[in-house]
Amino acid sequence: MSDSPAPASPFVPVVPAGGAGTRLWPLSRAARPKFLLDLTGAGESLLQQTLRRLAPLADRSPIVVTGAAHEAAVREQSGEGVRVLAEPSARNSMPAIALAAALAAREDEDAVIGSFAADHLIRDTSAFEQAVRSAHRAAELGYLVTLGVQPTHAATGFGYIEQAAEGSALVGPLPDLAGTGARPVAAFVEKPDLARAEEFLASGRHSWNAGMFVVRANVLLDALAEQIPALADGARRIAAAIGTDAEQQVLAELWPTLTSIAIDHALAEPLAAQGRVAVVPAPFDWDDVGDLAALARQLRERGSADGTDGGDGADGAGPVPSAEGIRVLGSARTLALDAQATVYGSSERLIALVGVERLSVVETDDVLLILADDHAQSLSSLVKRLEGEGLGDLR
Amino acid sequence: MSDSPAPASPFVPVVPAGGAGTRLWPLSRAARPKFLLDLTGAGESLLQQTLRRLAPLADRSPIVVTGAAHEAAVREQSGEGVRVLAEPSARNSMPAIALAAALAAREDEDAVIGSFAADHLIRDTSAFEQAVRSAHRAAELGYLVTLGVQPTHAATGFGYIEQAAEGSALVGPLPDLAGTGARPVAAFVEKPDLARAEEFLASGRHSWNAGMFVVRANVLLDALAEQIPALADGARRIAAAIGTDAEQQVLAELWPTLTSIAIDHALAEPLAAQGRVAVVPAPFDWDDVGDLAALARQLRERGSADGTDGGDGADGAGPVPSAEGIRVLGSARTLALDAQATVYGSSERLIALVGVERLSVVETDDVLLILADDHAQSLSSLVKRLEGEGLGDLR
Repeated sequence: MSDSPAPASPFVPVVPAGGAGTRLWPLSRAARPKFLLDLTGAGESLLQQTLRRLAPLADRSPIVVTGAAHEAAVREQSGEGVRVLAEPSARNSMPAIALAAALAAREDEDAVIGSFAADHLIRDTSAFEQAVRSAHRAAELGYLVTLGVQPTHAATGFGYIEQAAEGSALVGPLPDLAGTGARPVAAFVEKPDLARAEEFLASGRHSWNAGMFVVRANVLLDALAEQIPALADGARRIAAAIGTDAEQQVLAELWPTLTSIAIDHALAEPLAAQGRVAVVPAPFDWDDVGDLAALARQLRERGSADGTDGGDGADGAGPVPSAEGIRVLGSARTLALDAQATVYGSSERLIALVGVERLSVVETDDVLLILADDHAQSLSSLVKRLEGEGLGDLR
Repeated sequence: MSDSPAPASPFVPVVPAGGAGTRLWPLSRAARPKFLLDLTGAGESLLQQTLRRLAPLADRSPIVVTGAAHEAAVREQSGEGVRVLAEPSARNSMPAIALAAALAAREDEDAVIGSFAADHLIRDTSAFEQAVRSAHRAAELGYLVTLGVQPTHAATGFGYIEQAAEGSALVGPLPDLAGTGARPVAAFVEKPDLARAEEFLASGRHSWNAGMFVVRANVLLDALAEQIPALADGARRIAAAIGTDAEQQVLAELWPTLTSIAIDHALAEPLAAQGRVAVVPAPFDWDDVGDLAALARQLRERGSADGTDGGDGADGAGPVPSAEGIRVLGSARTLALDAQATVYGSSERLIALVGVERLSVVETDDVLLILADDHAQSLSSLVKRLEGEGLGDLR
């Protein structure tokens, strides 16, 4: 952390709300992605929680970039004071963030954007704010700043951010980071195997890449112009048309020409090699709620944190743990004996569980899923089979 | 088996259809007991299968004795040619069988009755018939004859029939059993602990008591008159009134006075001590479908025996095994990955199973049960809790 004065440049939150994952099926569907759902019984969707978390930091109204199919739902959930940009087609994260950056830069050439996925969970909002403000200060120096999540185990499912070694010669052209709370980044590393993940965990210099980036909008666009000029140019031209009569036409013409690429490959990796990336430690809880086992874990922790206890789950006030180790998200009534499970459902039926362990039970109108938590990662394979089984409408 | 001539006395099947067990809940309910259900996808209830199995043996129409609450359903399932006697209240098996015996004796004093529970499964009907005919011949000699099921494991959930040792002195007053296929019984033994059950299994002289009794109606009533005179007398008096104007009045008056006792305690045990009980080996499959794990096993075996294979379970033609080790009873559609389970259900919803093992999933309109098969015996404890949880209507 740091005692530097508050940043002078305006901060604009950017929220890419994309990705139709299958690992929370049947809670999430192709038409009802994870970020639109209240997965934790918080009374708000993950998108709404994300926007609420960013609100105290915002100097300009936040920009949500989402797929055209979800535009209406996103607008409804976001409410007043949030700008929603609809992508005509999915082009990965770089075009979405570049467009938001171009819109922010059009309004204020000093604008600093902070991009945060719409479907991650962070509970310690105060630590989150503090880290983003540190990142903001480092971004004002011209860095692409990422927030690095402290690893809690040797995860093989995340990319890693490798901090430059203490005292290593800095190759970059940018001002020193002293006083910002940020550290120079040596490299981004793709998802490792277990042996490397264990090395990373032991090194103390590696953090998880949670896709959180803070950067001056014009720094991002200029750097992108070096790497993929047409993409930077296209983003600026679309942003210039937003709010004008030509908006839809320009979007329809240019969007399909933009390179489909992730910000990690388009910018983070090449800029890290040039010493232009910094990392701020993210000393807060973070969870991408990657599958039902992760969600079950979140519900267990949240249940404890909230101090909730036994009950019938019918009060709708969040996940309810029972004496039998049953967590309920929804209004479903459960009765259990020697059972440990997480239950998602709101049907009128009694859900009775006997002798089961580490199970997720998801009841929706059209699907009942019973999943062993240690097979949570296999769920995608099952969802992929739906189409072939003539059940594509359940995706 | 034996080459004796066919028995001369008429055989009257008796089917006690009672007992509202809880171990197949929520398939069976207090108001919809196991014997009324088609639990195996055979297209018939267990009661109907029992009656069909007995039909080739019957010289007189079978007598079903059931609780008043189930009389209408039993009549509907039994159809023409079956007599249904409704007990005003549950008095255990002896009064029910005594009443049926008295009715059979009233019609034909030589009648031999054979009593078989309404909710057991036997697939090898030909071996069953042969064993009952052997028992019939032994019964004509004056014995109370039981069919002894060959133990397949050291079960602690059944009582055992102990055959007299080869060459042991017979204490009884009855003719020799030679040529009947039956052997004298030394004793009935209550459910043993595991150590004793293992001894029994090793002895070669112990068989499971499946509650199948064949006996001359008058032998039964006379023996009962020695043991519990009022019960024998009451049964005869009620039987005399059946079909007359006084039937309901006599039943209402006398039935509540009859001793509530099982045939094992009332007759089988004391008569065995007098050398008046014989056992016929039951060389057929037998299952009392005691819990959901037993039912799952039945469905697996039946599936194999029927030669059914992969499918979606929607054809209603019995339990359908899938490539993933899923058996379905009902029309429920399943999709599975690394899963082994038995599914009972006919809702429209897809039931998706991932990574689960040895599980029973029961879907009814008002209950979803997920039960680890190794906890099948615990189900009763859960069902007992329903009342206290304000869910008594789900019993």
